[in-house]
Amino acid sequence: MDTYGGSSSETVQVRNKKVMLKHHINGLPKESDLHVTTETVVLKVPQGSNTVLVKVLYLSIEPYQYIRSRKIENPGVFSSYPPGSVITSYGVGRVLNSGHPGYKKGDLVWGTTGCEEYSLITEPETLFKIQDTDVPLSYYLGVLGMPGLTAYVGFYDFCAPKKGENIFISSAFGAVGQLVGQLAKLMGCYVVGSAGSKEKVDLLKNKLGFDDAFNYKEEKNLDEALKRYFPEGIDIFFDNVGGKMIDAVLLNMRLHGRIALCGMVSQYPLDDPEGIKNLMCIIYQRLRVEGFVVFDYFHLFPKFWDFMLPYIREGKIACVEDIAEGLDSCPAALEGLFTGRNLGKKVIIVSQE
Amino acid sequence: MDTYGGSSSETVQVRNKKVMLKHHINGLPKESDLHVTTETVVLKVPQGSNTVLVKVLYLSIEPYQYIRSRKIENPGVFSSYPPGSVITSYGVGRVLNSGHPGYKKGDLVWGTTGCEEYSLITEPETLFKIQDTDVPLSYYLGVLGMPGLTAYVGFYDFCAPKKGENIFISSAFGAVGQLVGQLAKLMGCYVVGSAGSKEKVDLLKNKLGFDDAFNYKEEKNLDEALKRYFPEGIDIFFDNVGGKMIDAVLLNMRLHGRIALCGMVSQYPLDDPEGIKNLMCIIYQRLRVEGFVVFDYFHLFPKFWDFMLPYIREGKIACVEDIAEGLDSCPAALEGLFTGRNLGKKVIIVSQE
Repeated sequence: MDTYGGSSSETVQVRNKKVMLKHHINGLPKESDLHVTTETVVLKVPQGSNTVLVKVLYLSIEPYQYIRSRKIENPGVFSSYPPGSVITSYGVGRVLNSGHPGYKKGDLVWGTTGCEEYSLITEPETLFKIQDTDVPLSYYLGVLGMPGLTAYVGFYDFCAPKKGENIFISSAFGAVGQLVGQLAKLMGCYVVGSAGSKEKVDLLKNKLGFDDAFNYKEEKNLDEALKRYFPEGIDIFFDNVGGKMIDAVLLNMRLHGRIALCGMVSQYPLDDPEGIKNLMCIIYQRLRVEGFVVFDYFHLFPKFWDFMLPYIREGKIACVEDIAEGLDSCPAALEGLFTGRNLGKKVIIVSQE
Repeated sequence: MDTYGGSSSETVQVRNKKVMLKHHINGLPKESDLHVTTETVVLKVPQGSNTVLVKVLYLSIEPYQYIRSRKIENPGVFSSYPPGSVITSYGVGRVLNSGHPGYKKGDLVWGTTGCEEYSLITEPETLFKIQDTDVPLSYYLGVLGMPGLTAYVGFYDFCAPKKGENIFISSAFGAVGQLVGQLAKLMGCYVVGSAGSKEKVDLLKNKLGFDDAFNYKEEKNLDEALKRYFPEGIDIFFDNVGGKMIDAVLLNMRLHGRIALCGMVSQYPLDDPEGIKNLMCIIYQRLRVEGFVVFDYFHLFPKFWDFMLPYIREGKIACVEDIAEGLDSCPAALEGLFTGRNLGKKVIIVSQE
């Protein structure tokens, strides 16, 4: 059925598969914390609303889905999903019906959608229209989407990099880390990443051009590992994991080093976060530590695409995706994000056009 | 005896009282870790040297004296004093004899000296000549010296303050804290400080113009205390103590807040520093945390004096000093720095002119 090509779509009711949160998650996410159900949906926006109905083509699996699946006592950046509700993510989709003057049937868009086949977007001003379709559409969930902008803003604005500097990236094969490393190589930095498997380490070195990489799970002493890869110390630390890694890095920072705190994936599952003991190094080494949230920089997307698209088209920036088929794979994919099972940016193909 | 007025000084030998480190200190400093002894000194610099012999008038008691009295495994900013040697500090003194063309007999200087009555300065280029003598000379150890520059650089450069912002200062009655608070009031900030006694809290509010202050020793829950004084959160944290206070402050920082890490006096005595758990707030609140070491900014002293001297002359900045008489009081004064016994900038009068 061509659900977006003809006028018949306006009254069609179809089955709508969706991913629901069973209960607030404790500890690491498990496949069983989510369940996939099927309801029906009318392929038409409510009369008089300015909403947009989207057929979802690709969905991203994001650390924030887990954060929002936990009970959040003091909502700030994130609030909890209510148990029994559809979880959300970033999705790429095709507009089926629109009550908003900015979108029309057939438009390709990306933005926050429900993890479902058909999603009614109640805040359509948060969507982005996809103009450049000569690259894989799933890239708007990775290298051209939120993780890409995170790497771009985090690296250029918060790391203040200079040619020849030494940069260390944790969770380097993650959606953000792999881009930060490639941007740093383009700038002429010495780039080392940590990851959680030999396969990832090999890909970092052989596919993504990192100067070196190591498997943190095989290192008994992270401080010693870092001293091996950075005998002269680290100028820039781009951190996605938090916890012990920060403490080890602090012992290895050079004078006037910068630490960009992007995420703390190792800490999200902990009710009691690990204590960081080496903050005195921030003083002695005159460090700058900054945290940032990419949502503050979404207005930069057009500028970012102008920057990033040529690199992708010229093959100077690679994007390793780990693609799964169908919404039914969502629960396992979220669990996999925290067990290190995914190999690159995790994307779910929801529908083929 | 006028030791610097006449040519006779060139060959005079006199008794020289000095403060020695007995052994590397473990735990908090105790009076008994130091001892005062008397040797003799010839009041003439070694022939052909470019050293300067100074009669010490005032000495400062500094946290760094304690840091240097401990065993430092990896010397960086500081190296250990060898046991059995004279400890150093900042001192104000009068030049008795000089082998350096930049200094002549009778000059008033301040800088790093031995904790002794007569000190041979082997790196005279580190001394500063005192030009403005219409203020108490001891001020060159406090409000016009290293602590003053620390407050000036830390507040203006690292806190990036704006009128109306909320600033919290730990160890607010210390040499640095009392100045940061007064500078912040001059800028039109809301200023709260923590200190370790009712007397200090009263002085912060009634003498130094802080909007409020509290005794951290009487607060069971620092997070709750901060929420009481900053119901809308903290924009700027100027930290002198480290440890638990940082964790509590992190929970109370406003969006885009700044934390200047100046010192960690609560952590220096610990072999195993306290762990800081709330670093995730750096991300969610988009904070900037920076450490700095005032030694990097000593070239700014002339500019700083131009800024600060008018405030002092006009009585717009106060400097509370806790003055003790004689080198024999040094060991107790250093202990007192860590038990909170000193009431303001601790200065020792070594000699009266």
